[in-house]
Amino acid sequence: MRLVVIGGVAAGLSAAARARRLDKNLEIVVLERGPVISYGACGLPYYIEGQVRDLAELVNFTPERFRRERNVEVRTGVEAAAIHHSRRQVAMAGGEKVHYDKLVLATGARTDRSAIPGSDLPHVFTLQTPENARRLMEFIVTRRPRRAAVVGAGYIGLEIATALRAHRIAVTVLERDADVLGRGDPILTQTVTSLCRQFHIELRCGTPVAAIEPDRAGDVACDLVVLAAGLRPNVDLAAETGIEIGRTGAIRASDRMETNFAGVWAAGDCAESTHLVTGRPVWLPLGTTANKTGRVAGANAAGARERFPGVAGTSVVRICGLGFAFTGLPAAEAKREGFDPVSARIEDLDRPRYFWGRKTTVELVADRRTRRLLGGSVIGQTGLEGRINVVATALTSRMRVEEFAQLDLAYSPPYAQIWDPLLIAAQQLEKLLD
Amino acid sequence: MRLVVIGGVAAGLSAAARARRLDKNLEIVVLERGPVISYGACGLPYYIEGQVRDLAELVNFTPERFRRERNVEVRTGVEAAAIHHSRRQVAMAGGEKVHYDKLVLATGARTDRSAIPGSDLPHVFTLQTPENARRLMEFIVTRRPRRAAVVGAGYIGLEIATALRAHRIAVTVLERDADVLGRGDPILTQTVTSLCRQFHIELRCGTPVAAIEPDRAGDVACDLVVLAAGLRPNVDLAAETGIEIGRTGAIRASDRMETNFAGVWAAGDCAESTHLVTGRPVWLPLGTTANKTGRVAGANAAGARERFPGVAGTSVVRICGLGFAFTGLPAAEAKREGFDPVSARIEDLDRPRYFWGRKTTVELVADRRTRRLLGGSVIGQTGLEGRINVVATALTSRMRVEEFAQLDLAYSPPYAQIWDPLLIAAQQLEKLLD
Repeated sequence: MRLVVIGGVAAGLSAAARARRLDKNLEIVVLERGPVISYGACGLPYYIEGQVRDLAELVNFTPERFRRERNVEVRTGVEAAAIHHSRRQVAMAGGEKVHYDKLVLATGARTDRSAIPGSDLPHVFTLQTPENARRLMEFIVTRRPRRAAVVGAGYIGLEIATALRAHRIAVTVLERDADVLGRGDPILTQTVTSLCRQFHIELRCGTPVAAIEPDRAGDVACDLVVLAAGLRPNVDLAAETGIEIGRTGAIRASDRMETNFAGVWAAGDCAESTHLVTGRPVWLPLGTTANKTGRVAGANAAGARERFPGVAGTSVVRICGLGFAFTGLPAAEAKREGFDPVSARIEDLDRPRYFWGRKTTVELVADRRTRRLLGGSVIGQTGLEGRINVVATALTSRMRVEEFAQLDLAYSPPYAQIWDPLLIAAQQLEKLLD
Repeated sequence: MRLVVIGGVAAGLSAAARARRLDKNLEIVVLERGPVISYGACGLPYYIEGQVRDLAELVNFTPERFRRERNVEVRTGVEAAAIHHSRRQVAMAGGEKVHYDKLVLATGARTDRSAIPGSDLPHVFTLQTPENARRLMEFIVTRRPRRAAVVGAGYIGLEIATALRAHRIAVTVLERDADVLGRGDPILTQTVTSLCRQFHIELRCGTPVAAIEPDRAGDVACDLVVLAAGLRPNVDLAAETGIEIGRTGAIRASDRMETNFAGVWAAGDCAESTHLVTGRPVWLPLGTTANKTGRVAGANAAGARERFPGVAGTSVVRICGLGFAFTGLPAAEAKREGFDPVSARIEDLDRPRYFWGRKTTVELVADRRTRRLLGGSVIGQTGLEGRINVVATALTSRMRVEEFAQLDLAYSPPYAQIWDPLLIAAQQLEKLLD
């Protein structure tokens, strides 16, 4: 029995490792298009920033080590060109046919360069692989660019903007939408815009880039462009063979991560999952989800019956030294999803003043009718990841505001306030709901 | 209509403030035995340590300010001697009678000094009020004690031991039980014992103190003793008037925080609450619970109908610079409560190594039969309060291990690992349960 995994990064290797753990005898083959496997793409902006000294720090396994320790055959630099499911074959770009009994698709996502003319000019970069990062860093060091345009004010774009400032490059971020981070939240956009300004990053929302030229992106003069927008799931291989693509544009998968083809699973950035708040399919390409869905796909491919319940939409990003964390639905999206959202936003210290308490902002969103929590955000210097995780846990349990407001959260002066800002926000929300 | 509140610290003032917010016309009187109201007792060890410069930083309201801003009459230095509920009267120690229509008991807890002979010697201190702290600090500064014995290795005892080391006082902690922090956990006891040793604090468990003499406590030579054991709820006033005392020794209260006397509520350290994991009454005197139960008692005394669902038993304490956080039941207690506990303990970095990741230890306990989470602990430098709060939230929702292991927790290199240690521990626990 042979399991073939297409894709050797987060989801693919999680699938392979889990399948191996559950079945010692399965033959497992991983096919990876790129030269490197098992890298932490989320660390790439921190390599540009200088926090990560060596790209090797972001790589967990070499193909050799994964082969040796997991008894999995890993082939790099090989591209799957087609899937012939009736014959259980993957046709490789070079003509070779690879037989499978079970197949996991972990083909990831990539920046769609066709959307903006000029995206293939030599001073235009993306930041998805270690090779991308190495090339960008080389460009920075040898060409000493002075003005950069970053296309996209999602979390990657804003991380890259921060990283480029570490090289004293003037940065303009151009975002097509009216708001940053895909949140549709004008207050957040304003906060991020003023923060960026303090770090000499100009952030322009509502500014699509029509074209990139050698000395400009849109109307911004620059000698470096980083594309951090237009991320799309890699689904061509799946779609051409008849595997169903969902409305989000990613591969449709059951809660077992199985596609409409029996014996074919999809995981990671190429696949949809279920949003725990709306119950609907969603495409949220994040490393955490890639690892989890890969693990479930691998378990099921090895004969187990595991479920992936879905995602709350939790994320955290550091922009210009300040942390922004989110989970669930922002109010604007909650409204579009048919809820009647009410939100409360409060500011408080995250610890007592005598323990260097810093200002933190907490927003909670609930549904007026059911009083169920729908989402939240936390902005701050410390403790924000813990706070957003509490909200994510509450969303997973479909907790109502009253119950959330009474949560027994830890308190001691070095760590917290006696009334955690989360509870203050919940009390505020209760008042608005009454 | 007049509400009388006995006790002017966390629970009492929360009750008064909340009642005022809900009813502008209620007459509210707070009777406080001590000279100071509204202080954060949890900050007192940090005053001894030197982190808090002035005790005034720990006081939120003076009586005058509370009176002015909340329109509540606050009387300090007055002691309630008896309650005559049939006449709706509190008899004060001086003979005065104070009428009430509604009564909130927030009489707190205190160290039982009668348990150890010699506890009233002048070099023996407790640390429950700002006055206690002022006197201890004065003793340290003027008498320059060289060797201290701390009686009790609960969180207060261990915080005080740490604080005394800041004055270069040699410290021995004497604990009657075999284990620290009331957890019945030998591994934890060993961790804390070796940590203390590095900070030149000798920790002796299984060592009851028979008597205190001018130059020794038990067989430890010392010129300073701090009592941090034998905390008991102040229930005499309630018990003498026929208010029911629970098996824990604290005042029995409904989920409305009402006692068996209609119109009399109890809140804070003098009252029981319900443990969310066992569903049974429990006495866990903590500031967070005092504030919450006070708030609920005050609301109900003002005519609202609010519930206090109970406590998960969440706490966090810093000992010798390292953080220890707990929630729910330790395995030993879970067993006594009739569960079949299984626990997993893992060690991991709390962030990537290139973001100064520090070692953190996570333990999760679940019930073998139902696979429900029962408790957890987190030890670490940073992020431990957030992690324990996630576990507390999961306990509140009666989450099972499988669901917990799939939680959508935040990840980004400056804040977390892609697999949070909580999820690693949950995966480990799943393996043990299978």
